[in-house]
Amino acid sequence: MIERTSSGTRARLVTAMGELLRHQGYTATGVKQLTTVAQAPIGSLYHHFPEGKPQVAAEALATSGAAYRELFTVLMRDHPDPATAIEAAFAAAAEHIEQSGWITMCPVATVGGEVADSEPSLRAVAAEAVESWIDEGSRIFGDLGYSPPRARELAFGVVSGLEGGFLLARVLHSTEPLRAAGAAAAALARLP
Amino acid sequence: MIERTSSGTRARLVTAMGELLRHQGYTATGVKQLTTVAQAPIGSLYHHFPEGKPQVAAEALATSGAAYRELFTVLMRDHPDPATAIEAAFAAAAEHIEQSGWITMCPVATVGGEVADSEPSLRAVAAEAVESWIDEGSRIFGDLGYSPPRARELAFGVVSGLEGGFLLARVLHSTEPLRAAGAAAAALARLP
Repeated sequence: MIERTSSGTRARLVTAMGELLRHQGYTATGVKQLTTVAQAPIGSLYHHFPEGKPQVAAEALATSGAAYRELFTVLMRDHPDPATAIEAAFAAAAEHIEQSGWITMCPVATVGGEVADSEPSLRAVAAEAVESWIDEGSRIFGDLGYSPPRARELAFGVVSGLEGGFLLARVLHSTEPLRAAGAAAAALARLP
Repeated sequence: MIERTSSGTRARLVTAMGELLRHQGYTATGVKQLTTVAQAPIGSLYHHFPEGKPQVAAEALATSGAAYRELFTVLMRDHPDPATAIEAAFAAAAEHIEQSGWITMCPVATVGGEVADSEPSLRAVAAEAVESWIDEGSRIFGDLGYSPPRARELAFGVVSGLEGGFLLARVLHSTEPLRAAGAAAAALARLP
């Protein structure tokens, strides 16, 4: 029973960190706010995460990273050809960020960029997540008939377009950047 | 003479803010660090910028925004066709971020994303800069023969790809995302 409560606190800390990263980023998120949002005593933070804030953030990023990798597979599975699937994925992403009130959709890359110089270990976690998406995307596009270098280029084209589209959509409060980025990635998929 | 010194201090504050935004972002940059880097007394900050840090940041973003708009024109002028020009622009961007040690290449979008919820006035400045790039890109692509909606889509495709490519390049310490994003934007330019 104690174990169950304890693991619940741990999970709440990670979830709260994930939400705070999406709304305000890493630097703006303090340990006190984190424990308040997670409804966890501050001692429990250091019990579960002896290294404190960077360690919780690393776990939150790894969790988001794994979720996004799965999403890639799901989105590509339901459409007849890669270019159509890519367009549908960007349209879904555009709808999602608009409905979420233009929050940060991908804390992995955003936080990775924010702390790239100040928290090298957190950058490494973000880089690992991004590389896992590229590996997964390369595998999926390879299965659809693209050569290994083209499959990898396409995976990078999709992920770059999504990240840039998310960022600009948040700044402009508009879905237009995501739709254009989707058209560009789909055009890359359609090249002979 | 006093005027000249005073405007020098003002310019140094804006330049220092621009550099700090590129290395560590908005939240991590404090007023004390800003005046130290700018070699300016703290009183001079509030003399030139009564609203303090957000006002200096707004001016730094507006300055970066204007510089990037010019760059668009320069990069497109030296190449025979739009797709080749786009590829060359992304290759130059990739070389630039690598040589700069993977710092934030575009504080406008990055900071805009970071403060989108917390500093609405700063988000507005970032949005204005991004919109000015899209207007300029639409005009340039229009002059090259694209229809207005396609010219605008292409401008958004280029800017989204650059922003996402910059972000991922910084996280991965690799030029690969920018080269793939450039291939995607060029593929969009080549569509019949």
